[in-house]
Amino acid sequence: MPVGLIGLGLMGKPMALNLLRAGFAVTVWNRTRTRADEVLRAGARWADSPREVAAGSDVVITIVSDPPALEQVLWGEMGAVTGLRPGSVLVDSSTVSPALARRAAEACAARGADFLDAPVTGGTWGAEKGELVFMVGGKAEVLRRVEPVLAAMGKRWFLLGPHGAGQTVKLAMNAILALQVQALAEALALVSAAGVSAERLLEVLAASMARAPVLDIKGPLMLQRNFAPSFPLRLMHKDLSLALELAGQLGLPLPATAAARETYSAAKGLVREDVDYCAVARFWERTATAGERPTGSVGDT
Amino acid sequence: MPVGLIGLGLMGKPMALNLLRAGFAVTVWNRTRTRADEVLRAGARWADSPREVAAGSDVVITIVSDPPALEQVLWGEMGAVTGLRPGSVLVDSSTVSPALARRAAEACAARGADFLDAPVTGGTWGAEKGELVFMVGGKAEVLRRVEPVLAAMGKRWFLLGPHGAGQTVKLAMNAILALQVQALAEALALVSAAGVSAERLLEVLAASMARAPVLDIKGPLMLQRNFAPSFPLRLMHKDLSLALELAGQLGLPLPATAAARETYSAAKGLVREDVDYCAVARFWERTATAGERPTGSVGDT
Amino acid sequence: MPVGLIGLGLMGKPMALNLLRAGFAVTVWNRTRTRADEVLRAGARWADSPREVAAGSDVVITIVSDPPALEQVLWGEMGAVTGLRPGSVLVDSSTVSPALARRAAEACAARGADFLDAPVTGGTWGAEKGELVFMVGGKAEVLRRVEPVLAAMGKRWFLLGPHGAGQTVKLAMNAILALQVQALAEALALVSAAGVSAERLLEVLAASMARAPVLDIKGPLMLQRNFAPSFPLRLMHKDLSLALELAGQLGLPLPATAAARETYSAAKGLVREDVDYCAVARFWERTATAGERPTGSVGDT
Amino acid sequence: MPVGLIGLGLMGKPMALNLLRAGFAVTVWNRTRTRADEVLRAGARWADSPREVAAGSDVVITIVSDPPALEQVLWGEMGAVTGLRPGSVLVDSSTVSPALARRAAEACAARGADFLDAPVTGGTWGAEKGELVFMVGGKAEVLRRVEPVLAAMGKRWFLLGPHGAGQTVKLAMNAILALQVQALAEALALVSAAGVSAERLLEVLAASMARAPVLDIKGPLMLQRNFAPSFPLRLMHKDLSLALELAGQLGLPLPATAAARETYSAAKGLVREDVDYCAVARFWERTATAGERPTGSVGDT
Repeated sequence: MPVGLIGLGLMGKPMALNLLRAGFAVTVWNRTRTRADEVLRAGARWADSPREVAAGSDVVITIVSDPPALEQVLWGEMGAVTGLRPGSVLVDSSTVSPALARRAAEACAARGADFLDAPVTGGTWGAEKGELVFMVGGKAEVLRRVEPVLAAMGKRWFLLGPHGAGQTVKLAMNAILALQVQALAEALALVSAAGVSAERLLEVLAASMARAPVLDIKGPLMLQRNFAPSFPLRLMHKDLSLALELAGQLGLPLPATAAARETYSAAKGLVREDVDYCAVARFWERTATAGERPTGSVGDT
Repeated sequence: MPVGLIGLGLMGKPMALNLLRAGFAVTVWNRTRTRADEVLRAGARWADSPREVAAGSDVVITIVSDPPALEQVLWGEMGAVTGLRPGSVLVDSSTVSPALARRAAEACAARGADFLDAPVTGGTWGAEKGELVFMVGGKAEVLRRVEPVLAAMGKRWFLLGPHGAGQTVKLAMNAILALQVQALAEALALVSAAGVSAERLLEVLAASMARAPVLDIKGPLMLQRNFAPSFPLRLMHKDLSLALELAGQLGLPLPATAAARETYSAAKGLVREDVDYCAVARFWERTATAGERPTGSVGDT
Repeated sequence: MPVGLIGLGLMGKPMALNLLRAGFAVTVWNRTRTRADEVLRAGARWADSPREVAAGSDVVITIVSDPPALEQVLWGEMGAVTGLRPGSVLVDSSTVSPALARRAAEACAARGADFLDAPVTGGTWGAEKGELVFMVGGKAEVLRRVEPVLAAMGKRWFLLGPHGAGQTVKLAMNAILALQVQALAEALALVSAAGVSAERLLEVLAASMARAPVLDIKGPLMLQRNFAPSFPLRLMHKDLSLALELAGQLGLPLPATAAARETYSAAKGLVREDVDYCAVARFWERTATAGERPTGSVGDT
Repeated sequence: MPVGLIGLGLMGKPMALNLLRAGFAVTVWNRTRTRADEVLRAGARWADSPREVAAGSDVVITIVSDPPALEQVLWGEMGAVTGLRPGSVLVDSSTVSPALARRAAEACAARGADFLDAPVTGGTWGAEKGELVFMVGGKAEVLRRVEPVLAAMGKRWFLLGPHGAGQTVKLAMNAILALQVQALAEALALVSAAGVSAERLLEVLAASMARAPVLDIKGPLMLQRNFAPSFPLRLMHKDLSLALELAGQLGLPLPATAAARETYSAAKGLVREDVDYCAVARFWERTATAGERPTGSVGDT
């Protein structure tokens, strides 16, 4: 079964390598060709356009950074949609809006192809280990057909409902992750400003009902100010924005997600380089320092 | 070593029972005497005032619901402070502000007694099992003296710094817990409004980096609308307010904690009975339903 | 000078009538033709597409409800851009993102036409009276050429910078208006829940430094629960979303705007019909009632 | 009618001077005696304690900075309450919680004295010009008796309900003012980060429905970074905290007020000196600059 993969970023590259390791014939395309070197050396075939990838594959995986990038690889000049073979399956593992997933599903149907929205969780680490989790929207029968392909890249997949359901759950999951990291960042800022050791907070956290794998990993990195990107802040910011956009369309308030998104916006504005989303902790850098010298209070109005 | 315990609420009662089981002579007082029946039957002695408790104890534990209640049992008429024996230790396991902890420490010192702020985490379940975790502010030497008493009620204690440090970390920890539950509530509301099964979100969550014991427990209860109080919402609301008050004094913004506190305020306003803090999910009840029928959009301004 | 107007909504219709009154030859198009009846009776000419409007006009005004609607009338099938005459001016009075304004400017330039982003403030009342205020981005020389057209519909125009500057200021202005109404709604909810007359708050407000025309108008309507749309809530919600999107791109936090947007989302989810944005007050309806019976407080944890 | 005034801060001092100008015999006390010099030169009599002020006055005005300060002058050692003459009136013009106002009213009643909560709006400028507005809670008959005294300091008074109603409306009014200034600060940050002139935003604002006296005054000061205190940020922060505390007790969410309070917290943490509340604009200083260099976006995940 020939497999195509469009997008060789932090996630797409290890996914392609795992597909090759599993014995699939893999055709790839990426906006910047140099990022494909390692994958080509490992045996992948280069295609000159998303369309060419689609034309040569039974299963096409797209994993790009945001909705405009997905629109470009699907519907732009030499886009994948016009190349899709009848009976093939397009699996989009980007994180985009459920509405865009449904539009993509319709475009595939018009070409006689099937579609799954299948965003992933697990980060670069999970992508490298082949332990991604796929959140899938679409038909059970279509999912069954691509399971061997998913199994090369991940360990679990959840069929969550019709087209768009995978993206909906992905946006909800990332909102939870972002808020957990935000919660830890606020708590660390609070104890530090109050003169208590942030390390001790992590110890108590590890012994509490609040402990979580994401906090086990990000907590020490935040204390060390090690913000090397695992899941980039700009992408988490984008996902929070998509979650809020979806909620806004549904007439649903998400107060803490909205407050967190603004903090991620601020952190994004403070950095030049690409950083992990736990760099949201930088939001408190200046104020935490300043907070150690609280303003005085006088007795009369 | 005679031990006194002031406050026989959801936490205080099982703590008293565990002290008795461990063989301590326990004297108790509670605002409402009838709540003491079970503890008295188990062998505790009743005192007619906080002062009388203090006068007969080497270690006095206070565990009441909020700062005014603590001020009342310490400094009100027949309050504990005036009864403290020189050389005794007052251990306050209520959750109050670090500033109040420091005031209590000074009042103890003026009586020749020692003080520890030692708020707990673990909930009623931890109190019953004797598996509480104590977050302690004060002197290591004083902590050592009361360790046998703490060991009867809990499994771990962390010495976090001088007086107030225990309360500071407790407020930070509760802010994390409240935000985790808020995050889950927002995510559940989002997927439900979008027509995706909330149960499926919990499945994906359990397989993700975001899984946490507090969410394992509260998630299913939230889906069942089972809001029987384990940790009451009104107390979580109070703790969030104390965390924000502390941050405000330090000149530190806590945007997501603040947003969550308002949601907890709203949920508190929606209920008459005492409910668990995971009842914050009720905030979305009306809007989630309404959200299923999004308002139309027209094409012209 | 033949003038085209695309979009005959709450704003576009009175703007077209004022152009006709001022003696301009006006060609119109609207997605729903029946909305054009009054304007056609007043002397306007109907065109069968945005393209046809553009082909017959020296100045083309677009005023549609949101970015997708603008993209449709500009670049959709039979869109206006392909019809633009060299030397003509496209004036977009919709509220969209600055980025979209810049894209429109580029598309016009490619056709040899000029562009101004010129969103308006003043509401339906201002549109009817011909007292709109235009916030303009583009070249001074181009603005000068269309001033006679703007003068027929409005009383003032501000040249604020290059393409996109008009939209930027419009988004900022609407954020201020939305927050003023939100502030009043929060204040009214607070005094009402506390048992104080909301009418008296409006009296004090009118005597204070906080008084503002928007509050003079919306305050009494909010007390009467009169939410007939002047500026629809769904459009204010869209504008707040655009402001937050712009801020997010710039790495800038807008905490209160974000909190308000969620409240507008919730209010949007509570209504079926089209309502004014001051219906954000509906957010507090249930909680305000419930708030009159605060939950009790007990003395022990 | 001998009048006492306790608290000679930014507001109390000009109020005392106006009482003297109006011919009243005025006795004063202030925590720091040196602040009384000007008032004593103008003819006031010094008393050595709040109690002594009360003992010599028919009307006692208190105007101190916060609830603890009021508790101190009322119930501390040599506090005013124990000195109140039967039949006298205590007028508290501090901004405190409605609950504290009710406690003060009860304490007065126990001494055979009357009480009004009568916080003021108008700032130092209004205090100097004798143009304050009083928001009064209490009995109409009592208000009538003190009207000549209020008339010496202010131009209007509103009787808003029973004890506490004046404070409730004052907290609501200050929340509106704080949010208006926050809204302007967010809007200025947005246009500046987007490269548009902040001055132009103020021009458009002045021509819009959003114009307000508070913005006319604060806007130019914010552009000049002139944060000389008229109404100190620390007091606005305190008032927002009191409004949120009241709302929390009532089970009422105030999302934008809460978001704004965190921004005021952050601004408070950034300054050492006493600044006006429009210094909330400093919150965006760093991020606004950083925002001008938005982080890049890559095309692949």
